[in-house]
This record gives sequence, structure tokens and C-alpha cells, in this order.
Amino acid sequence: MSSLEERFAGLGIDNKLQISEDVKLRGTVLEGNSVNFCHGDVEAHKPPSNSLAIFEAGYEKGNQQAFSDFRGGQQIRVNVAQKLSKYTGTKVDAHTNLILTPGTQGALFLAMSSLVERGDKVAIVEPDYFAYREMITFLDGTVTPVTMNYYGHEAEAGIDLKALETAFREGVRVFIFSNPNNPTGALYSFDEIVCIAEMAKKYDVSLIVDELFSRMVFDGKRFTHLCAQKVIPDNLITVIGPSKTEALSGFRLGVAFGSEKIINRMEKLQSIVSLRCAGYCQAVFETWFNEPHGFMKERIYTHQRIRDDIIKELNQVKGVRVRKADAGSYLFIELPPLEIHMKQFVQVLQIQAGISVMPGTNFGEKYSNCIRINFSQDHDAAIAAIRRMGQLVRRYQKR
Amino acid sequence: MSSLEERFAGLGIDNKLQISEDVKLRGTVLEGNSVNFCHGDVEAHKPPSNSLAIFEAGYEKGNQQAFSDFRGGQQIRVNVAQKLSKYTGTKVDAHTNLILTPGTQGALFLAMSSLVERGDKVAIVEPDYFAYREMITFLDGTVTPVTMNYYGHEAEAGIDLKALETAFREGVRVFIFSNPNNPTGALYSFDEIVCIAEMAKKYDVSLIVDELFSRMVFDGKRFTHLCAQKVIPDNLITVIGPSKTEALSGFRLGVAFGSEKIINRMEKLQSIVSLRCAGYCQAVFETWFNEPHGFMKERIYTHQRIRDDIIKELNQVKGVRVRKADAGSYLFIELPPLEIHMKQFVQVLQIQAGISVMPGTNFGEKYSNCIRINFSQDHDAAIAAIRRMGQLVRRYQKR
Repeated sequence: MSSLEERFAGLGIDNKLQISEDVKLRGTVLEGNSVNFCHGDVEAHKPPSNSLAIFEAGYEKGNQQAFSDFRGGQQIRVNVAQKLSKYTGTKVDAHTNLILTPGTQGALFLAMSSLVERGDKVAIVEPDYFAYREMITFLDGTVTPVTMNYYGHEAEAGIDLKALETAFREGVRVFIFSNPNNPTGALYSFDEIVCIAEMAKKYDVSLIVDELFSRMVFDGKRFTHLCAQKVIPDNLITVIGPSKTEALSGFRLGVAFGSEKIINRMEKLQSIVSLRCAGYCQAVFETWFNEPHGFMKERIYTHQRIRDDIIKELNQVKGVRVRKADAGSYLFIELPPLEIHMKQFVQVLQIQAGISVMPGTNFGEKYSNCIRINFSQDHDAAIAAIRRMGQLVRRYQKR
Repeated sequence: MSSLEERFAGLGIDNKLQISEDVKLRGTVLEGNSVNFCHGDVEAHKPPSNSLAIFEAGYEKGNQQAFSDFRGGQQIRVNVAQKLSKYTGTKVDAHTNLILTPGTQGALFLAMSSLVERGDKVAIVEPDYFAYREMITFLDGTVTPVTMNYYGHEAEAGIDLKALETAFREGVRVFIFSNPNNPTGALYSFDEIVCIAEMAKKYDVSLIVDELFSRMVFDGKRFTHLCAQKVIPDNLITVIGPSKTEALSGFRLGVAFGSEKIINRMEKLQSIVSLRCAGYCQAVFETWFNEPHGFMKERIYTHQRIRDDIIKELNQVKGVRVRKADAGSYLFIELPPLEIHMKQFVQVLQIQAGISVMPGTNFGEKYSNCIRINFSQDHDAAIAAIRRMGQLVRRYQKR
């Protein structure tokens, strides 16, 4: 196998569920509306109502909009930089510290490619967003996992800071993590964030902080921006975008901001990876942090209610365990031991209950008894689906 | 300098012209409408009139449109595959041979990254699209340039096929080229294409054929699709999209089709690079190869006329030499020896005539006396601009 074949063999989370022949189904199909918990439902939680009109206005601008700088249109960057400066309590310079990208995935790829070189040790949290691992594989880096003990820590994420420091001391060059954590919805505490920032500075580790879900925080909790702390490392990139909470995923809008040197590299790379975030789509950044009155308040209230009602349902099922998400719209659900493999159970959910979920192993091999759901769904459909899932857990549970 | 620093130092064509202090201007500013010859003018040559309406219809479809497969929406792929099958005279399978990408730049990056591994020799044509070189640099490959003698070959591109065979024999793994050639507009002849395909097969070289401009062919000339030939190599990827002739660049739409193995790799990679071509934008593929009646005929007629009138103007300037583009919308113009460096003259054009062009050195170091223009412009503005350029050439010409 060539090294290229090997590398690509290590890539790819299969989101298309394959129906395997060897799953023996128990009982009948449970009727109900299909729910795809793999992503949020932008029909249940719509984009800001003016999004399309703003897109159209951008389209009408012609050349200026279509052919922006590779890092994004200048006017738009000025607008976004102002909003992010206010949001984070930092000074984001539109010209030197910011790049617009095709979704936050685009920003993550550019940032990783600008910081990780062949053989570099890269620390990630377990569990965390699966694409981090894949990007490291593509870049020929090596993964150094650090555990997050996400149960029993209401006021913090539970990252093992000692293990992180050991990893840093032993030569990790880059650390990437999501806050709030994907898949658990755990928020890092102020102390955790300060400690990570200071250790990164001390050991000269570059940081990529993925704040994609940071605007959706429940129960009045406090979000801590690492970039706003007194001590931060030289290379720090923060990634965020309006694809989730704001339901603008179909436009592919993302942002990275931080160290000028790294932003410059990212722009160079973007010019050969995709040229730019689609020119006409860039216009839609105008709605971001500028949503119609009450939009965010309603969105957070609605999602908190869905979260709570799902957890109530889950608590009815013996052996199920879940951390109440502090933020974001994911729940990482631990199921009791089953008589079939989790990958099979994921198929069973699809076939017998019309439910799509992601297997926990996408987030780390040890999570073979977990699934992740995105609860940004129609409330009633989601609750009914979770109820059906409970029934199937009982059917397939080890006795 | 770390290897990462070196790599990024080798990346980046600076499209933002810097005003250098040491240019001594001669004479006065020439008044006239600014023309940016670095890209086409989508206000002069507009997208198909129904593009925006089709985008809106896609947006209204919600989840289905926003969250397509990574390789693109299934229905859209079926539609595009049919059209490309007809266009190329081959059988493009929507499910196994096709991927939708953010622009053709996205397709090129994915294809290159799926085929080039560290240390691989990659052949390119000189002159050819500058991003090929940059992608090879990013992927730690090495560039093997093959000359194209584009003057004096009306019926062919003039690629040095003997040099290409030598390169293949001496271990080149991948060959990437644009047809029609960017920047010269030269079309490869049937014989050239058949020979490239057969040599690639013989020496087991992977091919990436960039047909971005292949629908804009002048003077009734014939375009030869390499993918439609009897003998083709195992790994063949063709790249095309509606960003240029069809003026849809602001949506970032591209396509790659070809070998199933490579398309699979490209999809895996796309899932970490940008997830997918923006879901709502994908809808706009519907207009492609399906333009309003007369659209393409008018577009070709108009561009041929602009090309001819620009060449007439250029012929008035002593010492200027240009190949009449067979296709596409670029002209690669050789200027007579100047008393200032070409990079300075490019600035002079900007300052004294409101004209933006790309220096020839972007396409190969030896083209230090050339510039590239995209002549997809307003006819009268372009002719007037070329006239101003002629005046400036005379001002700065070596005596």
C-alpha cells in the first residue's frame, strides 16, 4: 500500500449508513416521523428571515461581491471584525487578523494545514470533533489524545490538565479543541481556559480553539474566550461561524481570527484550496450577530427546552447516561450494554425507528457504547424519536 | 526556517498590486474607465438570467439542499452527470464518477491532493495556470516543467511531446494541464490529446485535465476531450465548472469527474477541507448546459469579437506579439523590451491607465516580458484600455 493509499484509508467518517445483512431485527418497525439527528433541522429552526434578501443584494453587486480578496471582501471583514471584537472582548483587526472561509470546516483545515507539519505531535481531547483526527492524518501528524472526564463536572469540562501538560512537555506542537465540546456540550470553565492558555504559552504550543457553538449557552452559564485572556500563546487561531445556531450551513460561512502570521498562511492556502468563501454567500455575514430582535433569545430558550425534554425521556431508560449539555446542540448519550454492536444498533435505529444518529466511535475508539445526537430538531418529532429509541434500547439490551 | 515556513514562502501569487516607491512615472495619467483584466467582468457578461431564481428555489428546499452528501446532492449529480456525459461523449456515472466542489479550484486541489504524494514528480506545461505549481509546492512534490511552443501553431497547442515522454519515462507520476491552455488560449489538437493519453497509459502516469474554458471555443474549432479517447490512463480526472464562460464564479461551483478510486479519495478529503460545495449554491448547477436559448452562441460571438478587436489594437504597437486565443478568454501578450521591470510596468498600467493585468512570471519565470489579460470585459472599455496600454508601452519601451 502506498503512503497515499494508507493516508486515505485513515480518512473518512462514513455518514451514509450502510445496511448490513447480518443485523437480526427484533420486533416490528416503530412508526413516527423520521428524524436525522446527524445534523440540525434548518426547517424547524430557520435562518434569520432576512438571509435570502441579503444574499440577493450581494448578488446584485456583481464583480465587487463575486471577486473578493481571497481572505474575503474588505467591507464584510470590517463588519465581521467589529462584531467579533465586541463578542470576544478583544481587538480583531479586519485587515491582518481575520479570514472568511467556506464554513468553519474550511477555517479548521486551513488553520491545521498552516500549523501542522509532517511528524508533528498534535494534541486533541477525547471525545472531540472527529474531523480533527482526520486532518492530522492527512497532514501526516501524530495524534496525542488527552482525556476529558465529562461526567460529574457541572462547572467545568473535565479535561485532564495534568495529562495535557505532560503532552505539551513531551513535544506536542499544536492543540486543537472545541468549546463547547462536540459531542458532549461541555463548557470549559474560566480556570480551565486560563490554564490551557498559560500552558500553551509556556511550552510554545500553537492553539486552535473551535468556538462554533459558543453563542448557544444554556442556564445562564458563562462562556470564556481563550483569545481574551491575559496570557495567550504566539500562535492562536479561533474558529467560529454561523452554520449551527444561526442555521446558515447551506451558505458555507466560516471565520478564523488570530495571529497575523497564521492568517497570512491561511489566505495563501485558501487561494489554492477554494479561492475564497463564495462571493455572493459572503454577503450573508451581515445577518450574523445582527439577527432580528429576539432571534437568539428564542433560539436558546427553544433548544434548552428540547434538551431538557430529551433528557427527561432518556432518564426513563435504565442504563442510559448523559451529561446535560451546557451549550451547543449535541448530546453524547451512553447506552447500556447491547447484544449487538453499536454500529449495528445505529442501523437498527434507522430501519426500525427512522432515526439517524452518529456512533460514538467517531469521537474516539473507547466510546463504543455511545451515540451523538444533534438536538436542533422539531421539538415534538425529537421527543417522539427519543421515545422510540428507548424502546429499541430495551429490545436489544443485554440481559 | 522550518519546513512549514519554507513551504508557505513558496506559496502565493500576489494579486494585490503593491505600489512600489521606485517606479519613475513618465508623462501624465491616461484618462478612461478602469478595467480589471485579472478576472472576467460579470456585469458586462452576466450569469444566465434565471440563476438567482434557481438559487432561491434551492434555498427554499431547506435541509435536503443544505446538507447534501459531501460529493454533492444526489439529484443534482444525476443531472450534471447526464449533461457531462453528453458534452464529453462518455459515460459519467453520477454515483461513482462525479464530485461537486467549491469552484474548479476546489476540484483541482482535491484531485492533486489525492494523487500527489511527498517527493512525487509532477509534470506541468510552461506556461500554464500558476496554481498548479503552488499546489505541488504545498504537497511537497517536485515540478517537472515541459515547454509549450505556442507561437506558430495554429492547429495545435505546441506542447513538446518528446520532452513530455522523457519526463514520463524518468518517473513523473502525475501530469496536470489546462485545455484550452491558460494563459495562451491554445487548444490542444486531437493528435496531441491522443498522444498524451496514450503516453500516460504506457507510463502509468495519472492525469488531471482542466477543461474550465472548454465551452468557449472560437472560429468553429474542435475541442478534444481526453476522457473520450480509446486509450486513457487508469487515473484520470477531468475538471470543469461554470465559473468563467457562464459567469457563475460568485457561487463557487466546480466539478471533477473520472476514476472512481480518485473521486472517492476526493470526497473523503472534501469532508475535512470544506464539507461540501455550498448546499444552496449547488442548486445553480441546474442552469449549466441548460442556459437560456442563444446564451452560449451570443457569449462566444461577443468574446470572439472582443478578442479580434484587442488583437487589432495590439498589432498597432511595434514589438508586441500574441497568439490568437483559440478558446477561453485569456490572451498572453508579449511586450517589447521595456526600460523598467515588468512588475513595475504592471504597476504603471494600474497607476497611469487604470488597468490591472497579471505579470507573465506568474506562469513561469521565463515569461518576464509577458502579461496575461482576461478579455471577458465590456468591449469598448477593453479596447480603450488596450489602446492606453499601447501608449504606455511606447513611453516605457527600450530605445
